[in-house]
Amino acid sequence: MSRTNATTNITWHDGAVSPQERQSLLGQKGVTVWMTGLSGSGKSTIGSIVEQMLLHAGKNAYRLDGDNVRFGLNTDPKSLIAKGYPEAAAKRFGLAFSAEDRAENIRRIGEVAKLFTDAGVIAITSFISPYRKDRDAVRANFQPGGFVECYVKADLATAERRDPKGLYKKARAGEIKGFTGIDDPYEAPEKPEIVVDTDRSSPEESARQIVAYLEQQGYLRT
Amino acid sequence: MSRTNATTNITWHDGAVSPQERQSLLGQKGVTVWMTGLSGSGKSTIGSIVEQMLLHAGKNAYRLDGDNVRFGLNTDPKSLIAKGYPEAAAKRFGLAFSAEDRAENIRRIGEVAKLFTDAGVIAITSFISPYRKDRDAVRANFQPGGFVECYVKADLATAERRDPKGLYKKARAGEIKGFTGIDDPYEAPEKPEIVVDTDRSSPEESARQIVAYLEQQGYLRT
Repeated sequence: MSRTNATTNITWHDGAVSPQERQSLLGQKGVTVWMTGLSGSGKSTIGSIVEQMLLHAGKNAYRLDGDNVRFGLNTDPKSLIAKGYPEAAAKRFGLAFSAEDRAENIRRIGEVAKLFTDAGVIAITSFISPYRKDRDAVRANFQPGGFVECYVKADLATAERRDPKGLYKKARAGEIKGFTGIDDPYEAPEKPEIVVDTDRSSPEESARQIVAYLEQQGYLRT
Repeated sequence: MSRTNATTNITWHDGAVSPQERQSLLGQKGVTVWMTGLSGSGKSTIGSIVEQMLLHAGKNAYRLDGDNVRFGLNTDPKSLIAKGYPEAAAKRFGLAFSAEDRAENIRRIGEVAKLFTDAGVIAITSFISPYRKDRDAVRANFQPGGFVECYVKADLATAERRDPKGLYKKARAGEIKGFTGIDDPYEAPEKPEIVVDTDRSSPEESARQIVAYLEQQGYLRT
């Protein structure tokens, strides 16, 4: 079924707009830039600069991070109870910090990033996402070219010295268990599309490197 | 912490881009157009035309519907098992069709629509979403002006005659239980921002009505 717009001669069709049509209309190609790295490696800072650089270039970019995901889509059981969920449902759907909850956290983020990618947005995710298996499962769910892994590299010593949220201190004091880099492993990507080395580059230099990659690969044009 | 881009004199700041800044850079204001109505009322057809009209006007719009949500973010336990989830985790996180699963389905869609709205996209959701309570919970989660409820009105007789997926026939034959309009109630919105009457208007006319509303309310400009 299709209809013709008499004034502009456009035919409206039922169903999904194709990725090619969307890219042509928006002047950009949807992609997920999946940032992974230690706490304190600079993911959020760099991601935020990339987002602003792209927005200032007239491109739609959006960052998914703990702030907008953990209190909403992937909230904990207590918050769901506060929203009126019965306790059993809140425990079932709310996410805590067990291994399976962490995997589901990453899976849902991957699914949302995929929707943004499908919408033609440049989605930038900044989560430690320490396990190769979880990241690879997200990648496998994307079309080729839709997923760009960006390893935000920092020595543990550097990240721990920065400690922007004071989490390493708490982990060393035993107040946080299973903290990545301290008593839980970080598995660096084996073949990331981008590596930014935050021991050697400023956040702005790293952000420029990411934007340059997106430009070279054709994500920022029709 | 902030940094200055020497060439363009832009200061990159840490953290989230404000909604005002985003609107000014993108030339549109994020919003969720939440379409609700009977199966066969025309939600998907109209939503698809709205999406195309906006894209052709250079605006970023994206439709969330069963096709891209039910097989991804809100998939069922069986699909999660196929993805390697242990059975208990798959049963816990996968969504079926009980009352609590349906509520969680709508909650997650609302959270994703909120992220799109935050990203400055015009998100169009097309789900029956028959219960007032679930829709009102989604609305309560948005900032004022971020959520626009659109009642896609059709007489049950009209919707059943259209029956694009043959679901009414199955429901009448008892092959589907708890089908909205047949053996489960549809609760029409009490104060929707938009009502489109698909018994009297073509899908294109209804779509134009929605786009006109967005235009009048200032969502399509800086």
